[in-house]
Amino acid sequence: MQRWRSSLWLSLTVSALIAVCSGADTDITLDAKATLNHRIQSLDLLVFVFLLALTVLTIWLFKHHRVSWLHETGLAVIYGLIVGAIIRYAGTNTTLVHMQVETQGTPTYSDKLPPDTLWFKYPVNQTNTTKQPEDVKTYAYVFRGQVYDIDENEIDLKATFDPEVFFNIILPPIIFYAGYSLKKKYFFRNLGAILTFAIVGTTLSAFLIGGLMYGCVKLMPKYLSSSYTFLDTLYFGALISPTDPLTILAIFNDLHVDVNLYALVLGESVLNDAVAIVLSGAIQNYGEHYSNSGEFESTAFLRSLSDFVSIFFLSLLIGAVMGCFTALLTKFTRVRDFPLLESALFVLMSYSTFLLAEATELTGVVAVLFCGICQAHYTYNNLSEDSRQRTKQIFELLNFLAENFIFSYIGVSMFTFPKHHFDAGFIITAFICAALGRAVNVYPLSWLLNIKRKPKISSNFQHMLFFAGLRGAMSFALAIRNTVSDARQTMLTATSLIVIFTVIIQGGAANFLLNWLKIPVGVDDETEQLNNYHVHSSDGYLQDVEGGGGGGGGGAVGVSGRGKTRLVTGADSNLDTPLDGNAATATSGRRRNSHEKAILARIWGNFDTKYMKPLLTHSRPTLLETLPVCCNPIARLLTTTQQLTQDGSEFRRVDSDSDICIDNDTGNGISQDGLVGGGRRNSINRVSIRYMGDTQNLLASYRNLE
Amino acid sequence: MQRWRSSLWLSLTVSALIAVCSGADTDITLDAKATLNHRIQSLDLLVFVFLLALTVLTIWLFKHHRVSWLHETGLAVIYGLIVGAIIRYAGTNTTLVHMQVETQGTPTYSDKLPPDTLWFKYPVNQTNTTKQPEDVKTYAYVFRGQVYDIDENEIDLKATFDPEVFFNIILPPIIFYAGYSLKKKYFFRNLGAILTFAIVGTTLSAFLIGGLMYGCVKLMPKYLSSSYTFLDTLYFGALISPTDPLTILAIFNDLHVDVNLYALVLGESVLNDAVAIVLSGAIQNYGEHYSNSGEFESTAFLRSLSDFVSIFFLSLLIGAVMGCFTALLTKFTRVRDFPLLESALFVLMSYSTFLLAEATELTGVVAVLFCGICQAHYTYNNLSEDSRQRTKQIFELLNFLAENFIFSYIGVSMFTFPKHHFDAGFIITAFICAALGRAVNVYPLSWLLNIKRKPKISSNFQHMLFFAGLRGAMSFALAIRNTVSDARQTMLTATSLIVIFTVIIQGGAANFLLNWLKIPVGVDDETEQLNNYHVHSSDGYLQDVEGGGGGGGGGAVGVSGRGKTRLVTGADSNLDTPLDGNAATATSGRRRNSHEKAILARIWGNFDTKYMKPLLTHSRPTLLETLPVCCNPIARLLTTTQQLTQDGSEFRRVDSDSDICIDNDTGNGISQDGLVGGGRRNSINRVSIRYMGDTQNLLASYRNLE
Repeated sequence: MQRWRSSLWLSLTVSALIAVCSGADTDITLDAKATLNHRIQSLDLLVFVFLLALTVLTIWLFKHHRVSWLHETGLAVIYGLIVGAIIRYAGTNTTLVHMQVETQGTPTYSDKLPPDTLWFKYPVNQTNTTKQPEDVKTYAYVFRGQVYDIDENEIDLKATFDPEVFFNIILPPIIFYAGYSLKKKYFFRNLGAILTFAIVGTTLSAFLIGGLMYGCVKLMPKYLSSSYTFLDTLYFGALISPTDPLTILAIFNDLHVDVNLYALVLGESVLNDAVAIVLSGAIQNYGEHYSNSGEFESTAFLRSLSDFVSIFFLSLLIGAVMGCFTALLTKFTRVRDFPLLESALFVLMSYSTFLLAEATELTGVVAVLFCGICQAHYTYNNLSEDSRQRTKQIFELLNFLAENFIFSYIGVSMFTFPKHHFDAGFIITAFICAALGRAVNVYPLSWLLNIKRKPKISSNFQHMLFFAGLRGAMSFALAIRNTVSDARQTMLTATSLIVIFTVIIQGGAANFLLNWLKIPVGVDDETEQLNNYHVHSSDGYLQDVEGGGGGGGGGAVGVSGRGKTRLVTGADSNLDTPLDGNAATATSGRRRNSHEKAILARIWGNFDTKYMKPLLTHSRPTLLETLPVCCNPIARLLTTTQQLTQDGSEFRRVDSDSDICIDNDTGNGISQDGLVGGGRRNSINRVSIRYMGDTQNLLASYRNLE
Repeated sequence: MQRWRSSLWLSLTVSALIAVCSGADTDITLDAKATLNHRIQSLDLLVFVFLLALTVLTIWLFKHHRVSWLHETGLAVIYGLIVGAIIRYAGTNTTLVHMQVETQGTPTYSDKLPPDTLWFKYPVNQTNTTKQPEDVKTYAYVFRGQVYDIDENEIDLKATFDPEVFFNIILPPIIFYAGYSLKKKYFFRNLGAILTFAIVGTTLSAFLIGGLMYGCVKLMPKYLSSSYTFLDTLYFGALISPTDPLTILAIFNDLHVDVNLYALVLGESVLNDAVAIVLSGAIQNYGEHYSNSGEFESTAFLRSLSDFVSIFFLSLLIGAVMGCFTALLTKFTRVRDFPLLESALFVLMSYSTFLLAEATELTGVVAVLFCGICQAHYTYNNLSEDSRQRTKQIFELLNFLAENFIFSYIGVSMFTFPKHHFDAGFIITAFICAALGRAVNVYPLSWLLNIKRKPKISSNFQHMLFFAGLRGAMSFALAIRNTVSDARQTMLTATSLIVIFTVIIQGGAANFLLNWLKIPVGVDDETEQLNNYHVHSSDGYLQDVEGGGGGGGGGAVGVSGRGKTRLVTGADSNLDTPLDGNAATATSGRRRNSHEKAILARIWGNFDTKYMKPLLTHSRPTLLETLPVCCNPIARLLTTTQQLTQDGSEFRRVDSDSDICIDNDTGNGISQDGLVGGGRRNSINRVSIRYMGDTQNLLASYRNLE
């Protein structure tokens, strides 16, 4: 519970303190101690920063030499383990000094709550009394938390951070970036499957793991079984269920794995993080607030359920609303003339989404995810080219640093975090249950989905989905958040080990498995695009702007681009990928294309194209065309002149289809960028396409309205 | 001293607490309180984020309508003041509950230091005893600091941050960016004057202000005069002396003011921040550690002086070494193939400079400044185009957000920070002394400099320098760092008001003053360049690579580019600036060019071109040419093949002269970028120049060595 860093793990600092202590008075000693604390905090951070720098250099070396059996996250974990061990066994220690106190005189204070601060009168034995006349000084102490185990053998916290740091600083950029870089086309095409896996699958897996673990734990020796309630194991189930996108997607990205598999893995792992955090919150609430006995109570269960649903959807709503609000801001102001201001606005609005959700007791991480999705889908289209690149690059970098930090920290904390509790039985059970939970998530649901799904999820894909269930940042962050009881500490240890194992072993083996399962690699969505639409020349490629207004209803959210303007991502390097080699995939892609839009995706896509995009971006058709005639005054208000008069170069920038707006990468863009060297520097390197459509007609009709 | 946020300034949160309090047990209440605290912290931050977003939008509006009498920093301050007033007068309050405690039983604890944590046994009146069998709980309290004024009427902290946040989070990116974007050419040309103003001037000004204030304060009513020591007023002198570059440079930038004036103001204000922070630290140390009486003691003075000098130069050294180390890393690895990794490495190394300096009890801000300068001078040349842009854009954005945050906070804290102490007499004296201090900094030193300086600093320039002495972030951060005594609180208030006044009034009037003083505006350094060197065509412009090796010694650090390869910043918009209109400036520029290199700059420049640049970057001449023959084996080791074989496109990227590497802007790049619209998107938009020099010869000689 003590987060006040007091580990003096460098002897030089200790000696500095001693030097100051002798013969100086309390003030100076205190001052020296404060300085020392600051230095130690800086050192702690420095260790991690150097660790990250080292990781970066090694990643480069690995990429340079095309080492494929270890990926960056695995590397970060391994370095973290090494450094953690060094810190643990090489450093010197001083322990925290603590003292028992009670209230002065009789406790007249009648509030239920303990006071916020204690003012502690402490007699100082002074050698020098010129400056402080009294012998007693008063020090302020700030409330920190309850002490559960007074007799516990306190180990120092070395190089550890407040777990809340993860939720407030590390996870938001990772999750935002995941949302901001979702490949929306394939995401929406597989929406049904993704939602099933993420929501149903994660919940199912959480309950299964919770139940299994509870059963197993009850078979274990007395002291263990007594410390676990069903809620504890259920919480464990919830935190171990979400899968991590980072490593596996970095690999997929390198290999240009089949786009649908990619979309499934990415979409699921992004969404199940959101589901897991809300689910674990609901379970926590159930235990702490609703239930008195810890046993099943139907009202408490229902309240937790409603918590889960309402928090999830309200967070989603806040995220979406803030995203759309940013889109409106960027659409109706010309802030894009000043790219720096625009980028700043973008970052501020995205961050405020997180804060707003947290301030209203919702889940900031979930809000930020959906904010990211909306920003990519709408706002991105309104941004200037400079801001597009800048925001993408900034969040890419933040994401990279944050994820490597968290994986390094997982490694380091295995040795330095004092609240680990190793229990071989529990850990082995946890490993087995986690695998079972993943299996229950993948296989039965795939079978269920395959009943109606057109391109079945093949059994090889299912194996890969099962295998892609690495555990990562979210599991660890949830586990380390609460380490009050023995049970929770055992869970943290098990979670850390599962994360480390899956990231290093499964991550490393993914490459071989892909080969073994004969999953198509080297597939490029752009290649598929090119084949589908026979776009060969860059300029002068014409396609009508949604034919005649809102009719047809074809264009689901970028599902296909039929009846919608397409901009083709230029990706110069991709044009070189052998088209013939992928003929089979491409053909199947073409066939799929017409059949497989999920109904949900189709309805939403239609609504999106007709109302949302015209409202929030400069895209065509405008609301003037899609809204009923009676709404024309409003529609005119919400349609910018730019939207009507756009053409040529202006147009090119404005109406880029967001389906492909972030074509570069997800997870980790380095590899892709890197492998092709400097050739693909600006990832948004479009083959430019011009409209020569009915701009003039539209403009005329607009003038008529005036 | 209490930083624990406990301000419940939204009634909704208060009612939420009350609702939970009634009828629930202590645990839940505590939990609710923790949640509440988190929500309030989120709200605090949210207020600032919204404030920033609002500022961004208004800045856009002002720029859009070309409002020039109020600049962004002024705007941020004004919005801050408004929001601060609203928070102060609209919110509801609850106060912190605190309780006096003493040690349990007899105080057997004999250490001089108070304990790190208190474990407080607190009797909880429980209504529900099923879960907690005991009646007494133990809570942990963490040491915070000494309570100086036990009777003080505690006001709540509303929307305030720990002052250390400024030094550890807000200032570093601002200062780093200042270093990273220094226009080195003009900076080095005016090095002598800049160093004189920054080091001598700031110290002089600090002592003058300190002395004057002390005299004035002693003439004031009893209660005031007694609370000030000379050290207090000297500290005030040190903190109010540094000038702030932001506002004034944004204006200069918009107007393309004379480059030498620009360099003087920028260089001085960047360096005097560094001087001031070290100086104030030395003064603080003098008072706390070295001196017993608070009166003058020569040994204590000398120790402080050596502190000042050693901390300043060691910090400088750390910054420079880390910068050069990054340059070596980027030169000798091919991490540039992976721009994301490269940018990450760059950011990590820069941040670790700060941490390293802090961990070794030096001044991180100073280290980061010189690290920034080295990164721009060396590392920048080794980066890939992508990373150049990305790092520049990221730090530009960080700088923008940080500086607007700090100015908003200055506004808000005027109302919300509880430790303000208004004293009209002190404030008026402070205003007068600050102006006098600035005058002493500018006029006598300019006179002194003009004795030897070739292009004199004209009296109009001197007036402008005087007037450009806005106070800003550093003054405020230093003032708010220590608000223990009444004297210090009065200083904070005076400093805040001086900052607000100078930023709004002087910042707003700068435009008019420039006109009135007839200072040349619309001058462009590129224009000057073009005239000087008659570069008219873009491609195929040839100039020899430092003639025949290290001879000549002409090329001071980018002072002129004679005998050195020049890359001309393309800046398409600048090519349009009327060349004739600036003929006078250009001519004088040409004349100056040959005469006015400071000796210091010349020596350094020579060394830099011959040894540092060849060692740290891929530039030519190589060390093979500049080092004596006996060192050839080492020189070969330190020369990359790329350095020898570079040509064509490779070369263009590698050997960009860092003099002009960051041509875009300092302070605030928006304006420039903005005004020319999208036309000047990538600021590094060079007119490409090819070498057709003696690459082959060099390569041949390299082969001979083998």
